[in-house]
Amino acid sequence: MIAARPVPPLAIETDLPQPYLLFLGDTIEPGFAKTAFGLRDWARDKCVGEFACSPDAVSTGLPHMRPAAAYAKGARALVIGVANSGGIIPISWRASLVEALSAGLDIVSGMHVRLASLPDIAEAASRFGRRLIDVRSPPAAIPIATGRKRSGKRLLTVGTDCALGKKYTALAIAREFRNRGVDVDFRATGQTGIMISGGGIPMDAVIADFAAGAAEMLSPDADPAHWDVIEGQGSLFHPAYAGVSLALLHGSQPDIFIACHEAGRETILGTPGFALPEIEEVIALTHTLGARTNPAIRCGGVTINTAHLSDAEASALLDAEAERLGLPVADPVRGGARFERLIAACLA
Amino acid sequence: MIAARPVPPLAIETDLPQPYLLFLGDTIEPGFAKTAFGLRDWARDKCVGEFACSPDAVSTGLPHMRPAAAYAKGARALVIGVANSGGIIPISWRASLVEALSAGLDIVSGMHVRLASLPDIAEAASRFGRRLIDVRSPPAAIPIATGRKRSGKRLLTVGTDCALGKKYTALAIAREFRNRGVDVDFRATGQTGIMISGGGIPMDAVIADFAAGAAEMLSPDADPAHWDVIEGQGSLFHPAYAGVSLALLHGSQPDIFIACHEAGRETILGTPGFALPEIEEVIALTHTLGARTNPAIRCGGVTINTAHLSDAEASALLDAEAERLGLPVADPVRGGARFERLIAACLA
Repeated sequence: MIAARPVPPLAIETDLPQPYLLFLGDTIEPGFAKTAFGLRDWARDKCVGEFACSPDAVSTGLPHMRPAAAYAKGARALVIGVANSGGIIPISWRASLVEALSAGLDIVSGMHVRLASLPDIAEAASRFGRRLIDVRSPPAAIPIATGRKRSGKRLLTVGTDCALGKKYTALAIAREFRNRGVDVDFRATGQTGIMISGGGIPMDAVIADFAAGAAEMLSPDADPAHWDVIEGQGSLFHPAYAGVSLALLHGSQPDIFIACHEAGRETILGTPGFALPEIEEVIALTHTLGARTNPAIRCGGVTINTAHLSDAEASALLDAEAERLGLPVADPVRGGARFERLIAACLA
Repeated sequence: MIAARPVPPLAIETDLPQPYLLFLGDTIEPGFAKTAFGLRDWARDKCVGEFACSPDAVSTGLPHMRPAAAYAKGARALVIGVANSGGIIPISWRASLVEALSAGLDIVSGMHVRLASLPDIAEAASRFGRRLIDVRSPPAAIPIATGRKRSGKRLLTVGTDCALGKKYTALAIAREFRNRGVDVDFRATGQTGIMISGGGIPMDAVIADFAAGAAEMLSPDADPAHWDVIEGQGSLFHPAYAGVSLALLHGSQPDIFIACHEAGRETILGTPGFALPEIEEVIALTHTLGARTNPAIRCGGVTINTAHLSDAEASALLDAEAERLGLPVADPVRGGARFERLIAACLA
């Protein structure tokens, strides 16, 4: 994965304690470290460094430092920058979290499990007078979805799988819309997006009956020329998370969707035996299902994460896919003329 | 709606206080009273009568009586037999619930809102020494779905909408399978089914990320000849609940699905402006999406709720639809040769 340039925050400031030390645990799978990579790329000025509890852990490329050194450099919170299937905080991380608390850092987590529910962590936070902050807490009064058409325009990113660029794509599109003078909000649906933007709803923590209602709440009625660019979640083809993806699609009622993919990924992350769908299958199914709440839905283009490819390989792939699919195809991290064509197609 | 014959319970006995007085509130929409109708039809021997707080409320046809009279006839719990969009307990019901508590009845609820969170109800329960029982409580440790193929056979009911016969169909199929000597369990996914059978998972109360995992947990590995007959929820075409339906479909990995419909229903319940899908659209989409976790999925037939039709009208409709769709079509409440053909097609 290559580094994107730092950008100003896209939404309201958060009151989370900052700057951050990014915690990578003992995670060796880059796909599980998307929170850390997202903060590095979209909130670089809020990150003083990274910290792991295993020498084999993935790295963001930021300076490695222990909590005490990070505190001395200004850090005020350790952010858990990795996820895992199930959203748990394993025993192997606990000593590192206690070390952070003892060094004067609060802990910010987007995991399913509540920090305060872990006795050792709760005890240490109390002892050192530090805060435990869970950002994966949905609003209290989410309504049941109505399906009513809302004013304003909406764009949703969808994917062939989890953890391959839906948030990056939405952030990059929102930034580029803003650069062109469009009135736009990035709408975060996951913990990293919420940490970056300071607002949003953690879709995957909402009770299932209210998930589409949460998506409706996330992008309310707006000026007819206003755009909400909504971070997608999961995939309609993911055997664990497709329900969340469908609720988000129905509730977002997008005018435009962007299909997101990673070059070379062939199987669904974390669920052995499930082949990735073809991009055109994702486009067709999103169109079919999305038309239920917005009959005017259309695909604005495709983004492909080409971080593992050379420049030449990426260019060849992106052009070949654009030709094959008859749509703008770009890597938003690489940007350039291809991404500008995709932006133009969305705004056309 | 016509009354079905009483049947023995299909699963393990519950330890809920019984028998029941069915509470109908002030609900005038029969579609919202499916809990009361379900208990009347599938657990008739556990119901002593009904009670409402408005003379205009729907009726199950059971004897109407106040809580004190019901207690004298043996009732030990008032069951909230109606739902509404959002699962709330309105102010207009509260005096009736307090009357039940004062008469010696516990209260059993499947609503989203917890009985004990309502100060007036909690105070009255404490004062009269009665229990408040919420059956819409999912198990504590639901895993993320894996998509792994499980042993045994599964049947899932799906629908063109909510509240039109998916539970009835599943109960009737499970009963008929049992009558034919098949090793079968009815698997409840909603509050009424849980009250009837004494077990199950309230799918709509599960956190969205875990919904498919809950469905996997509900029908575990079993003997190759064993059938789980799983109660469907919502509809893939419902703008509020499609995500729940998709998670249940993926997690159930059914070998057979039955498409359920109500004769004459033209719009989605509770969401104005949404036309009901055609039955064949439901079959096609269920097949497409269900194949993700069970490529061998097939439609075993269609059930149509013809409660509002005469015998002659119902017969004509069922035969015409069977001809048009090329599938067994039956009303499980009416039963008969059409339903026997559907059962045979499922077991073929």
